[in-house]
Amino acid sequence: MMMMMMATMRKKSPGFLFVYSRIFHSHQPLNLHHNNSLLRSGTSFCTPISRYFGSIRECRKAFQASAINHFKVPSGFRFRCITSLSSVVQRNPSFSRLNSDDIEFFRSILGEKNVVQDEDRLLDANTDWLRKYRGSSKLLLQPRSTEEVSQILKYCNSRDLPVVPQGGNTGLVGGSVPVFDEVSGILVCEAGGILENLSSFLDNQGFIMPLDLGAKGSCQIGGNVSTNAGGLRLVRYGSLHGSVLGLEVVLADGRVLDMLGTLRKDNTGYDLKHLFIGSEGTLGIITKISILTPPKLPAINVAFLGCKDYSSCQKLLVDAKRKLGEILSAFEFLDNMSMDLVLNHLEGIRNPLPPTMHNFYVLLETTGTDESYDKEKLEAFLLRSMEGGLVSDGVLAQDINQISSFWQIREGIPEALMKAGAVYKYDLSLPVEKMYDLVEEMRTRLGNSAKVIGYGHLGDGNLHLNISTPQYDDAVFAQIEPFVYEWTSNHRGSISAEHGLGLMKANKITYSKSPEIVQIMGSIKKLLDPRGILNPYKVLPHSLHS
Amino acid sequence: MMMMMMATMRKKSPGFLFVYSRIFHSHQPLNLHHNNSLLRSGTSFCTPISRYFGSIRECRKAFQASAINHFKVPSGFRFRCITSLSSVVQRNPSFSRLNSDDIEFFRSILGEKNVVQDEDRLLDANTDWLRKYRGSSKLLLQPRSTEEVSQILKYCNSRDLPVVPQGGNTGLVGGSVPVFDEVSGILVCEAGGILENLSSFLDNQGFIMPLDLGAKGSCQIGGNVSTNAGGLRLVRYGSLHGSVLGLEVVLADGRVLDMLGTLRKDNTGYDLKHLFIGSEGTLGIITKISILTPPKLPAINVAFLGCKDYSSCQKLLVDAKRKLGEILSAFEFLDNMSMDLVLNHLEGIRNPLPPTMHNFYVLLETTGTDESYDKEKLEAFLLRSMEGGLVSDGVLAQDINQISSFWQIREGIPEALMKAGAVYKYDLSLPVEKMYDLVEEMRTRLGNSAKVIGYGHLGDGNLHLNISTPQYDDAVFAQIEPFVYEWTSNHRGSISAEHGLGLMKANKITYSKSPEIVQIMGSIKKLLDPRGILNPYKVLPHSLHS
Repeated sequence: MMMMMMATMRKKSPGFLFVYSRIFHSHQPLNLHHNNSLLRSGTSFCTPISRYFGSIRECRKAFQASAINHFKVPSGFRFRCITSLSSVVQRNPSFSRLNSDDIEFFRSILGEKNVVQDEDRLLDANTDWLRKYRGSSKLLLQPRSTEEVSQILKYCNSRDLPVVPQGGNTGLVGGSVPVFDEVSGILVCEAGGILENLSSFLDNQGFIMPLDLGAKGSCQIGGNVSTNAGGLRLVRYGSLHGSVLGLEVVLADGRVLDMLGTLRKDNTGYDLKHLFIGSEGTLGIITKISILTPPKLPAINVAFLGCKDYSSCQKLLVDAKRKLGEILSAFEFLDNMSMDLVLNHLEGIRNPLPPTMHNFYVLLETTGTDESYDKEKLEAFLLRSMEGGLVSDGVLAQDINQISSFWQIREGIPEALMKAGAVYKYDLSLPVEKMYDLVEEMRTRLGNSAKVIGYGHLGDGNLHLNISTPQYDDAVFAQIEPFVYEWTSNHRGSISAEHGLGLMKANKITYSKSPEIVQIMGSIKKLLDPRGILNPYKVLPHSLHS
Repeated sequence: MMMMMMATMRKKSPGFLFVYSRIFHSHQPLNLHHNNSLLRSGTSFCTPISRYFGSIRECRKAFQASAINHFKVPSGFRFRCITSLSSVVQRNPSFSRLNSDDIEFFRSILGEKNVVQDEDRLLDANTDWLRKYRGSSKLLLQPRSTEEVSQILKYCNSRDLPVVPQGGNTGLVGGSVPVFDEVSGILVCEAGGILENLSSFLDNQGFIMPLDLGAKGSCQIGGNVSTNAGGLRLVRYGSLHGSVLGLEVVLADGRVLDMLGTLRKDNTGYDLKHLFIGSEGTLGIITKISILTPPKLPAINVAFLGCKDYSSCQKLLVDAKRKLGEILSAFEFLDNMSMDLVLNHLEGIRNPLPPTMHNFYVLLETTGTDESYDKEKLEAFLLRSMEGGLVSDGVLAQDINQISSFWQIREGIPEALMKAGAVYKYDLSLPVEKMYDLVEEMRTRLGNSAKVIGYGHLGDGNLHLNISTPQYDDAVFAQIEPFVYEWTSNHRGSISAEHGLGLMKANKITYSKSPEIVQIMGSIKKLLDPRGILNPYKVLPHSLHS
């Protein structure tokens, strides 16, 4: 039996439930925003579907062919039980199978309606998790408090019932209302807080969340932290290891670890919370979070620039850090194939730099306290950059609509890729100066058989490498992997910059981490989850899970 | 036998060797800068002397009374052996005693001159470590490479010889030259790099270190990371958990963990490096570091302000974060007793706000790209704050000398305290709004028997609580402890914001951490250092060391 806490359907925001339905139950085109929310669901507890499927079409096919039972649930934590797994992963024989006594026990803790066996209700919840695997879910549990999570885990641990955490306690009601201190800027909230709701809550107080993602309308802060989500504000506000100040975590045996400090500085012993940031739910279930939030700055300016080569983009980044310094808040790049794709496949998107096509484009954003001063500064910077030849052409957004339309180009790439056919997606960290070499080598390698596009967070050394073919092709795939991992490893890069390892990349961890490190990770897993019930087969190589 | 890696005397900077000598071998007044460097040596591997002594005088007394043998060493890593420890700490009976075979072995690895038994040479190195303890050091080892550290540890582990890491490989020569990538802003260096040298190195490239400390002239980056040093730039650039991107660490058994990533983003498995940041050398010895460095911004402005009450200081902080936003780089506060102390005990310091004395003072710094614009902005902010009544009076530094003189007041407090007599020092993290309540409660508690002063990093919720008496007084001490820890614990504060736990506070960890957390820390210690040879008796409660 496999038990899961699912990405939750929110009763406070039924729109997202609808969207999930739309994606998996019909063949309507996807809404960009929600499309993104799936693509970036590395930011939720669950492994994002985009890691497992060449395209959303394949995902639908796989889903339709699977024998999974689905359960739809209105809100709350969820656990899901699956009877069998994949042909790839050998089921751990020490795990028990769910029986009627287990279900009785869960009902006694959670009440009838939070122990869900209804097939329909599992449907949405189950889909963004599986690929080639044939599962058949039997149970969804919806604990609503840390105490309930603790009781469930304690029981599952004693019974060797594996658990997959996939969502948080949702409703921002009653005890779940976040607590905010405006002097320190520290927010304390439950793991199920939806990023966008938390952002709105802070907005009223003049603050922002230190991370922003396309998925913000549906992803939950617990998932963001569990997967160490990166996103668009990382270049300015740093990673969650810097901004998360405290966590409450339930361990596999039900022990509740209170690390929910609300202090910027605390040097008393080992800072254990970092183990749980980015461990994808394999070491414990995050139930509460305290996080440092930056003040909201009113002045946002965005420029969209064309550059003749990748080297110019790099030099522009160095200059921007120096000259724009404290106001630089995003530095994204895309190549001309990305632009081409967006222009050809998405409606209502226009090239802001007609009619010339450039080899590279940079989206540069500043955020500060004074709009006119910032704009003046940005204009002066762009002028100098054009005179110096780093920028061939550029436009500065004149209003919020233009800002939004520039961002749509950058954020529209994943959707355009899906519309173009099958897509092989890689989320890599590489030394900035070598980053684009991989795109070019891949193009040489694949020739005319695929389109290779590169874009991403240049400021963070994070390349989104995407390979697009009309349909999924094993021969192309064999040309891509393991080459892409080997190349990344040889250049001391990371095979997953922000999307995590999940199930598919668990065995690939050694491309980024030495055997000594992986061994210690395994020991820590054993220490915190000795029976291995939490999110089995994920993150660590399968050999370390049994 | 206890083995130590000592805070190193640097052949490249003999001034510091001289200063160490001056502090411990004569009764000359201390130079402010180097005085600070000791006070803040929570930032070096070793436990700072200021944690153990009421005043530098006591430290001298204790030192003179101790039976320690000292060894002076020109450079490199160092290990020191001590035969007996304190009356407080029971020596772990499983540890071996050093014999001549051990010394032979070390000589075969390090060469004759790096295995130091000369008594004089241990003198300086030994002193900033002990308090009531009577130690007698026998050996200092100076490994110069990761490989040598690894061989030594492997041997010590097999022989159960305990090791205290206290410094790094120093010289910034040959293979030790840091490697810097200006596109990403990532610096890779050896643990022994002196903070000030690294800062100078970066300065030439237009970047700065993300931390700054009074101790920068002598503290080493390995020590900074091992103790998770905070310092003056934290409010702007965040903690080392955010800016350290990678570490190379040697474990107790000699295994070298290569976590020396130079990537801003890497989500492949558990981020183990965080275990070593702030663990004070008890889990492994850091040998190399990669760290993200911010660009150097040319425009620094400093204002020195008087406020009528603590509440005004808080409101001013909130306003400053909103209105100055991206350029705010420091927000320090001191109370009028701190000011009084500095004016009375340090020469050449003038009150910038004569003739009125205010109840509180705030030092506010901005750092940006445009001096005149920033100054204009700061002036406008201060004008509004004065009109609104948050600021009673204030001055804006007109040149670098004034900037420096304002900072001298804030940074002179520790020295002034020492000159005033014995001092009981506490470095606490507390919710900002409750922070000063503790100072006031302590004043009520102690009445006329002591002066209670409060200052610190208001922007980080970090209070330096100092209690000053003409000489050390057990009765006063009994009034302070455990009250100060209990009060902090009751307000969910941390008993050590940036100075770590070391030896003296190891048993006090439970004031800040729950039993479950402490137990897991103990398990992690056992996992990484099963024989407990690394920095024994430190950080964790003594019960967990045996």
